[in-house]
Amino acid sequence: MHETSGDKTFPGQAAAGIIDCDVHNNVPSIEAIYPHLPDRWRDYLIEHGVSSIEPNYYPRGAPLSARPGSRPPSGAPPGSDLGLLREQLLDPWEVQCAILNCLYGVQMLYNDDWAAAMARAVNNWQIAEWLEKDPRLRASIVVPAQSPELAAEEIDRLGGHPGFVQVLLLVRAKMPYGRRYYWPIYQEAERYGLPVGIHAGGATGDPITPVGWPSYYIEDYVSLAQAFQSQVISLVSEGVFARFPQLRVVLIEGGFTWLPSLMWRLDKNWKGVRREVPWVDRLPSEVIHEHIRLTIQPVDEPPTPEHLFQIIEQIGSEELLLFSTDYPHWHFDKREDALPTKLPSELERKILVENAQAVYQL
Amino acid sequence: MHETSGDKTFPGQAAAGIIDCDVHNNVPSIEAIYPHLPDRWRDYLIEHGVSSIEPNYYPRGAPLSARPGSRPPSGAPPGSDLGLLREQLLDPWEVQCAILNCLYGVQMLYNDDWAAAMARAVNNWQIAEWLEKDPRLRASIVVPAQSPELAAEEIDRLGGHPGFVQVLLLVRAKMPYGRRYYWPIYQEAERYGLPVGIHAGGATGDPITPVGWPSYYIEDYVSLAQAFQSQVISLVSEGVFARFPQLRVVLIEGGFTWLPSLMWRLDKNWKGVRREVPWVDRLPSEVIHEHIRLTIQPVDEPPTPEHLFQIIEQIGSEELLLFSTDYPHWHFDKREDALPTKLPSELERKILVENAQAVYQL
Repeated sequence: MHETSGDKTFPGQAAAGIIDCDVHNNVPSIEAIYPHLPDRWRDYLIEHGVSSIEPNYYPRGAPLSARPGSRPPSGAPPGSDLGLLREQLLDPWEVQCAILNCLYGVQMLYNDDWAAAMARAVNNWQIAEWLEKDPRLRASIVVPAQSPELAAEEIDRLGGHPGFVQVLLLVRAKMPYGRRYYWPIYQEAERYGLPVGIHAGGATGDPITPVGWPSYYIEDYVSLAQAFQSQVISLVSEGVFARFPQLRVVLIEGGFTWLPSLMWRLDKNWKGVRREVPWVDRLPSEVIHEHIRLTIQPVDEPPTPEHLFQIIEQIGSEELLLFSTDYPHWHFDKREDALPTKLPSELERKILVENAQAVYQL
Repeated sequence: MHETSGDKTFPGQAAAGIIDCDVHNNVPSIEAIYPHLPDRWRDYLIEHGVSSIEPNYYPRGAPLSARPGSRPPSGAPPGSDLGLLREQLLDPWEVQCAILNCLYGVQMLYNDDWAAAMARAVNNWQIAEWLEKDPRLRASIVVPAQSPELAAEEIDRLGGHPGFVQVLLLVRAKMPYGRRYYWPIYQEAERYGLPVGIHAGGATGDPITPVGWPSYYIEDYVSLAQAFQSQVISLVSEGVFARFPQLRVVLIEGGFTWLPSLMWRLDKNWKGVRREVPWVDRLPSEVIHEHIRLTIQPVDEPPTPEHLFQIIEQIGSEELLLFSTDYPHWHFDKREDALPTKLPSELERKILVENAQAVYQL
C-alpha cells in the first residue's frame, strides 16, 4: 500500500506490482519525430504541409474520452507526457511494467515507403523518449503493416532490443490477418519471440461491418468486436498457428465476453468441415487457448457481476486475460473498478501479473 | 406420445403440438413456378436458359448437409416434397404449425423487376402447393429485398393472406438493415402485423467479414454470426424500432449464444454516445428484448450444458427463443437433441410453442 495512491492494493497483486498491457504513448507533435527521420522524409512532411498523422483518438470536443488531466498543459495530445503517465498511472497504481502501444497513424498511409520511414522514426522516438527514460516501460514495435515485407524488416531491425516486447497491428486491415499476405510479419515475430498485438482501430477500405457501412459512431465502435471475432476466425482457420507454432497473438481493446460463443461455433463447424482446413488438427478452442490472449479493458460488462464470472469460466482457461488500463482513455474512476470484483485471488494474480509475464516473457 | 414416431414427447410440449419456426420448402424445378409467372418472364427464363435459381444449399456432393432421405426419388432438392416433410417432420414430431422459409435465390438477382416477378411466382406457388395443401403450414413472404419499394408492394399484395405470417430477408444484404433504404419494408410489415424474419444467407457484394474476404468455407459459415450481430446493432442504432414500434424481427439460423455479449457492449456504449442516437431512448437490451426473437437451430452449443443454461439466463428474458429444426438441414439425429436438455418445463414450453404463438400471432 502506498500512502500517495489513496487506492487499495489488489488482493491478487504481486509484491513487484501489476503489469499494464495497454498504455498509449502519443507523439506530442510531428516535430518530435523529425530528429528520427531521414532528410528526405522530413523535407517531405514540411513541403507537403503534413502537420500530424495523429488519428485524433482524444478529440478536444470530447474531453471525457481521455482521463481528466491527461492532456499536457502544452495542448499536446493526452498520453504524450511521460511525467503525467508516471504521476497518473505508473506510480499510484504500482505498475511494475507498462506496455506502450503507440497508435500514431502510420498504418493509414498509402505510400509504403513513407509508412516504413514513419514507423522507424516512431520506434526510434519510443526508444529515446520512453524506453530509455523509465525502466518500467516496454513498447510494441510500430510497423508498416500495409507492406508485410517492410514490416518484417522493421521487426528484424528492433526484435533484439530488450525494450520491445510485441509487434503492433490494428484490427481493421486490408484483409483478414490469417491470409498468407501477412505471414512475413508472423515469421519475424516468431523468430524474435514477440507476440503480435492486434489493437482496436485501423481502416480496411471495405465496409466496417460484414453487411455494409453503418451510419453512426455507436455502430462503428460496437462493431469493433465483430472485427476481432473475424480476425480470430481467420488466424485459426487459415493456419497461422500451424505454420508458426510459437506465435502468440494478443487482442487489445476488443473485449472478451464474445469469446466463448465464438469458440463454440468454431469448434462445432470445424467438426463438420475440417477436411477443408487440415492444418487445424485439433479443436479450434484448443488453438485459441494456446495462442490467443486478450486484454480486459474496456470490458463489455454485464449488469450482473455473476454473468462476467460465468464468461471467464466459459472461456475455459485462466491464462487468457491480461490486465490493461488503456491509459489515457477513461474507462473507470476508481482503481477498484478496473477489475471485476470478487475474482479468486489466484485468478486475479494471473490477470494482473502472471499471464502477461508468460506471453511477453517479462 | 405417438406410437409411430418412436420419439418421446417433450415435457414442455403443449397438447396441440410444437411450432417449428424454420422449415425450408424448396422449389423442385424452375418449371414448377412457370404457371405462376407472366408470359414475359416465363419466356425470359426459357430464352435465356435459366434452368434454376436454387442456391444449392444441399449440394449432392455433400449429402450430409440434408437429412438422409429428404431428397425426393425424383432427384429434386431436399425440402421440395410435401409428402416427405409430413412423413419426416410434421407427423412424427407432432408439429402443430411449421413456418416455411423458402430460400429460392430471388434476392440474388440484380434485375429488380425480374426479382419481383420471381418473388410473386414463388409466393403464389407457396399458396398453391403448400399452404392450401396442409393446414399446419404457414409461410414467409419472399420479397425482392434489393428493391424495398417492390418488396413493400409484395407485402401489401399478400399481407392479408392468413397463410403468410412473416416477411423474409437474408442476413447478408446490400447495406445494414437499419438504413432508411429498407424502411418501406418495415412499414408494410408493421401495417400487416408481420414480423420480419432475417435468415442466414444472402450476398452483400462487399466482403463477408468486417476485415475483408476470407479463404475458406468454415470462415464464411462461422462469420454468419457476425453478420447477424451487425444487423442487430444496425436495427437498434438506426432507429427502426423507434419508427416502427410494433415491428418484430426474428433472426433465423444465426445462433443466439452471442447475444448477451452484444447486449452488454451495446448498452455500455449507448450510455456514452446516446446523444448521437436520441431515438434509442432506453437501454438497447430493452429494445432487443421487446423486438428481437431468435430461432434455436443450429445451436452454437458449448460442450458443457450448464454453459448453455447460463447463456439463456444471461439473455435476460424467456420470451426470445423460438424452436426450429431447420428441416431439411441435418443438425441432430434424435428429437431429444433438438432442445437443450434439462430446461425447466415452463421455459421449454415457451420455446416450443408460446414464444412463436406470440410473435407470429398464431
